[in-house]
Amino acid sequence: MNFLSLSKAELSDLKADLEEKYSSYKENGLKLNMSRGKPSPKQLDLSNDLLTKGMGSYYAADGTDARNYGILEGLSETKQFFADTLGLNPDNIIVGGNASLNLEYDALIRCWVFGSCGEKPWSALPEVKFICLTPGYDRHFGMLQDLGIKMISVELKEDGPDMDKIEEIVKNDSSVKGIFCVPLYSNPTGTCYSDENVRRLAAMETAAKDFKIFWDNAYGIHHLYDEGEKLADIFKLCEEYGTEDRVYYFFSTSKITHPGSGISFVSASAPMIKEIKAHMTYQTIGHDKINQLRILHFFENNGGITAHMKKHAEILAPKFDLVLNKFNEEFKDSGILSWIEPKGGYFISVNTLEGCAKATVALCKEAGLTLTGAGATYPYGKDPTDSNIRIAPSYPEIDELETAVEVFCVCCKLAAANKLLEN
Amino acid sequence: MNFLSLSKAELSDLKADLEEKYSSYKENGLKLNMSRGKPSPKQLDLSNDLLTKGMGSYYAADGTDARNYGILEGLSETKQFFADTLGLNPDNIIVGGNASLNLEYDALIRCWVFGSCGEKPWSALPEVKFICLTPGYDRHFGMLQDLGIKMISVELKEDGPDMDKIEEIVKNDSSVKGIFCVPLYSNPTGTCYSDENVRRLAAMETAAKDFKIFWDNAYGIHHLYDEGEKLADIFKLCEEYGTEDRVYYFFSTSKITHPGSGISFVSASAPMIKEIKAHMTYQTIGHDKINQLRILHFFENNGGITAHMKKHAEILAPKFDLVLNKFNEEFKDSGILSWIEPKGGYFISVNTLEGCAKATVALCKEAGLTLTGAGATYPYGKDPTDSNIRIAPSYPEIDELETAVEVFCVCCKLAAANKLLEN
Repeated sequence: MNFLSLSKAELSDLKADLEEKYSSYKENGLKLNMSRGKPSPKQLDLSNDLLTKGMGSYYAADGTDARNYGILEGLSETKQFFADTLGLNPDNIIVGGNASLNLEYDALIRCWVFGSCGEKPWSALPEVKFICLTPGYDRHFGMLQDLGIKMISVELKEDGPDMDKIEEIVKNDSSVKGIFCVPLYSNPTGTCYSDENVRRLAAMETAAKDFKIFWDNAYGIHHLYDEGEKLADIFKLCEEYGTEDRVYYFFSTSKITHPGSGISFVSASAPMIKEIKAHMTYQTIGHDKINQLRILHFFENNGGITAHMKKHAEILAPKFDLVLNKFNEEFKDSGILSWIEPKGGYFISVNTLEGCAKATVALCKEAGLTLTGAGATYPYGKDPTDSNIRIAPSYPEIDELETAVEVFCVCCKLAAANKLLEN
Repeated sequence: MNFLSLSKAELSDLKADLEEKYSSYKENGLKLNMSRGKPSPKQLDLSNDLLTKGMGSYYAADGTDARNYGILEGLSETKQFFADTLGLNPDNIIVGGNASLNLEYDALIRCWVFGSCGEKPWSALPEVKFICLTPGYDRHFGMLQDLGIKMISVELKEDGPDMDKIEEIVKNDSSVKGIFCVPLYSNPTGTCYSDENVRRLAAMETAAKDFKIFWDNAYGIHHLYDEGEKLADIFKLCEEYGTEDRVYYFFSTSKITHPGSGISFVSASAPMIKEIKAHMTYQTIGHDKINQLRILHFFENNGGITAHMKKHAEILAPKFDLVLNKFNEEFKDSGILSWIEPKGGYFISVNTLEGCAKATVALCKEAGLTLTGAGATYPYGKDPTDSNIRIAPSYPEIDELETAVEVFCVCCKLAAANKLLEN
């Protein structure tokens, strides 16, 4: 049924039906949450050996007692482990604390306070701008906004950033200092950057000598199905163009082991690692090496990280399938909802009828279903067409999710009917 | 034997004797380290249950699943635990990662980038100065130097800072924005601030409205002997004078459990906690809650933190006693070395004959004994009289320490003899 071809009378009837359903949901006093990309308790259980068993030896391979102070850049075997997992150079890795977000923030702050590549600190410039791919990750936008960095929205297309637009902007404006990218299974669209687009990011000419790509590969191995997407090696491509110093590469085990107590890393070119360490040495004596070892031992004892990620996928994929099947049933050819079918990551990004995202989220909230706030996927929380909503199906269990999606479908339709009747 | 009353001939003879002893040490190929305040392996063993046993329940008291994301300020019971340990208000605590140093750096950076108390960011000012108590902690000086903050040395006296001097400076110069304090068993002198001096820090009039005291209570419960020193409650005193917003209070379990994998906190007035969180929310979703619970469970299962600290003292006190007894034997009335007998903390601060600290440390190094670099206890690494050396007796085992102190004594005497023969 295409909503857009209904008469006002038909819409009114439909609205009455939907309101009846909606009321019944409201009466049920639901408490459902699809707002954040949180692993479910069953996913967390996969890593419980980390908590219930002893960690084994607390000596690193080189004899370092991991209990004591020291080792600013993290243990060698931890760097090697991440390097093997993601195809990186272990020498160019610094292991952080429990969150790559914190490493991203620190990298941004260092550019802001101290500058990079011998250029002025960004705080000393009259204006600093960043390219923000939309829809995108609210926490990236948040840290830019907190610093007063001007955010320029550029569309994230099906195969990655709108590179024509970006090349034009960064070539001509030296105040544009960087871009945040989630290159694989992007938050929230699930987009994977094509090899060609990664190449263009590596190759592009930037007016700013200290232009930075914050390569947040948060979902680097978080495939939902067997045939995972492949991401081009940005460092290798940068080497071709002599632009290695523009990349900060981030990753963490947050959605692999336990989000609260994982380990993270930043990778960069050798000169940039040196630059990071030159300031980081005043910030900390070193991050939690015990946890670095604990997580390494866990993967060795539990058949490796790839096998572990398959177990996550076995729990996650049915949830994504449920939501997507329901959308197909309820919204195919409806004209009021479009969505992307991701192959990994933690989100399903949908677009409602223009001007209906806020209303849909509000209706859901009133019925006991919390979604990510409408607008959150855009800089300054302002979605220009008020249509994008980020759905996070990972946390609820299947039966809860079923109800949650039903509620969402009714709210989305009701918001659309209201909108169409307004006109 | 007073070196200062020896004739040149006597000094020459003495020097020859000392050089002979020194040569024998050099031949032994020693590898001793008294450079950093690191707990010894035996001390670390006290907390091995943290590693070898399961952590128990991963649910917080309020039902929070500590494995997942969230709880920016840390778990309630962790805040309560620290509050109970140190006499603080649990509502005014934010739990951090594995290092209070990192929390100190972050607090400094926030003042630098965003400003505090509604005042301009420090980075926007033509000059920012800090008072540095000397001798002091090199890592505090390091982070100030990295930001280009001008360090003004003020003497740390036997009962705390030279308050007359400080009051005069902060009253008249609005570019003086803060001071780092290690108020109990100060690094390196072991000094404990008198109640009167804490009161004066709370009461003093500052030209800068956003003056900050970085109250690094690193050794807050690290007593060596039964009769521990007491520290006045700075927040309570500040309340009397309406100056609560000037204090950032730091603490960690680094030297209680394992330095690499402890937990830390910052405490401040309610408005300052709010100010911290307003920016911190862009930096992290929350620190390691599993570790917060793990450490809490450990203390409950191991008879509490006070009993645990006594076990540390039982290992540490004999080491301090050994060094101090040796100094008494070797240097009493020698005129070439003075020292302070600390009642807690991790260091013994000594003063050599003027101009002999660097030479002593260099001689030790050559004989295989690493000490903290001479000058490290002063801003910019410059000890104006080249006399202060920080001795860290915690790490070596007793027999190693015995040799290390012997080497130190010979080197110190040799440096003094050389100096006196020069004149």
